[in-house]
Amino acid sequence: MCVVHSTNEDLALETADAYQAYRRDLVAAGLLIPLGVRGVYGRGADFERVIERFDALVSKEGGKLAPEVMRFPPIFSRANYEKIDHINNFPDLMGSLHTFTGGEKEHRAMLEKFQQKDDWSRDLSASQVMMTPAICYPLYPTATGTLPEGGRRVDLQGYAFRHEPSDDPARMQIFRMHEFVRLGTPDQALEHRNFWLEKGVEVFRSVGLPVEPVVANDPFFGRGGKVQKAIQREQNLKYEFVIPICSTEKPTAIGSSNYHLDHFGVAFDIRTHDGEVAHSACVGFGLERIALALFKTHGFDLAKWPGEVRDVLGIH
Amino acid sequence: MCVVHSTNEDLALETADAYQAYRRDLVAAGLLIPLGVRGVYGRGADFERVIERFDALVSKEGGKLAPEVMRFPPIFSRANYEKIDHINNFPDLMGSLHTFTGGEKEHRAMLEKFQQKDDWSRDLSASQVMMTPAICYPLYPTATGTLPEGGRRVDLQGYAFRHEPSDDPARMQIFRMHEFVRLGTPDQALEHRNFWLEKGVEVFRSVGLPVEPVVANDPFFGRGGKVQKAIQREQNLKYEFVIPICSTEKPTAIGSSNYHLDHFGVAFDIRTHDGEVAHSACVGFGLERIALALFKTHGFDLAKWPGEVRDVLGIH
Repeated sequence: MCVVHSTNEDLALETADAYQAYRRDLVAAGLLIPLGVRGVYGRGADFERVIERFDALVSKEGGKLAPEVMRFPPIFSRANYEKIDHINNFPDLMGSLHTFTGGEKEHRAMLEKFQQKDDWSRDLSASQVMMTPAICYPLYPTATGTLPEGGRRVDLQGYAFRHEPSDDPARMQIFRMHEFVRLGTPDQALEHRNFWLEKGVEVFRSVGLPVEPVVANDPFFGRGGKVQKAIQREQNLKYEFVIPICSTEKPTAIGSSNYHLDHFGVAFDIRTHDGEVAHSACVGFGLERIALALFKTHGFDLAKWPGEVRDVLGIH
Repeated sequence: MCVVHSTNEDLALETADAYQAYRRDLVAAGLLIPLGVRGVYGRGADFERVIERFDALVSKEGGKLAPEVMRFPPIFSRANYEKIDHINNFPDLMGSLHTFTGGEKEHRAMLEKFQQKDDWSRDLSASQVMMTPAICYPLYPTATGTLPEGGRRVDLQGYAFRHEPSDDPARMQIFRMHEFVRLGTPDQALEHRNFWLEKGVEVFRSVGLPVEPVVANDPFFGRGGKVQKAIQREQNLKYEFVIPICSTEKPTAIGSSNYHLDHFGVAFDIRTHDGEVAHSACVGFGLERIALALFKTHGFDLAKWPGEVRDVLGIH
């Protein structure tokens, strides 16, 4: 049901129709469970099973390089959030956690607003945590100091949050990423980025997803964002693995491989063994989007997926 | 290193010391990774492995009753949050997600506050989502309508958030629960609660955790909360599985089995097959607390855990 477009003016409308259609099919099949907010879903048993199996596949591939394994929760420190430029570049995507810190009197006042359907959220205060926008962000503040000789490799998996309500089933507000991060010299970071550009294509092709690597195009905010976008394209730092899910003209990024230069090394004072500012790179696999691409490509019935794909994933 | 207390006045201080000591040991062993906020941690490889293995064990035990399997993310609909009384009973534990919805001008104003270290969070707006306080809450709104004959059983696993910054490593702000929910008649719900009271003790004992079931004691907010606490105790609806982690006098709940009466049936208009308001019950296994209890009981070196415990968990 992916659509091919002839004129630009029809593109937006046809794409929106294609989103709605695939979303409806996914819900009808019990793969996604609508939760009343655009881009927020429960996951059905088969959807989760595909995520688990693909996750195990990339764990195995990445495990060959013997990374440390760490898992971070969906929230991280507000103080560290304030050091990574996200408030400048992607303020509209942030998730800031607020809570109630008052006493009985303030509670009664808030409940009165609640009962009168006024905005009771104004009575809350910012907590010390933010939603994690990318699952490697919590790692860098823990790496402050000097890296061991040879740098570090870390295997991460967890939830990322981005506030971008959408009807596109592939644009969820909360989703899991499996990432492999490299901390070390510029050469080590760049080699990691390039290694995973090739390895990523190979892994995706092994499950029947013929992705193309393209230069990334992140949604930087506002007029300043246009400059950031141009810089990102020009420097060729980040590549995305794209494949059509709902639209061939607007293919979806289901992973990316990104060289951060010394961005996190500077922000969190991470040094290489010989005292230079550390560089970093990470590859990220977007697990929900990968599941959506697999179901789109191979159909909703796991038993009818190609034998070689089921073998690679261990779905029997 | 668990402490035994002789006088009440020493209890708080000794317990606090015991929390700090166990927390320090866990961090030194790489099992927990401090993230700069009390009660928010990364998880090391062995910690995560124990969680995965215990999770697989309860999946297998619960799977014998052939539940539907669903997975919900750490956020759910604000509109549904407003229907479950949490704002009345536990406002201090809530997590409300706020984001930036302004344009360029408002962004510049927020950034100015940010640069001057003023409270920029006041420039955010409440989004349509809240953190999930208990992993079964997102389920009930999806069950509005009439249940199939025999009701439903659902297997859930995911993150819950509770804003309660603490030095007790077992009191995390974000943690995973594995739950089994029953929706149906009062008899079916009560039978589920009681079945899991016994089965839970059996599962915990099989991994060397001699838990005791006790009537639960939830931290309802404020003066009204005292009444709620008394009602909860009197009705004997919710039991917790407790075991000493840091303190024998203040044992920790690592799971619970809870009969909700018709609370969620009324809130979300869930009906049994013959048209009555549905009752519900759920058992919850607190995965991080269980891992902490296992490491406390059997030590930090998985290879030295008792052979029968490793067999049951599949740790080899």
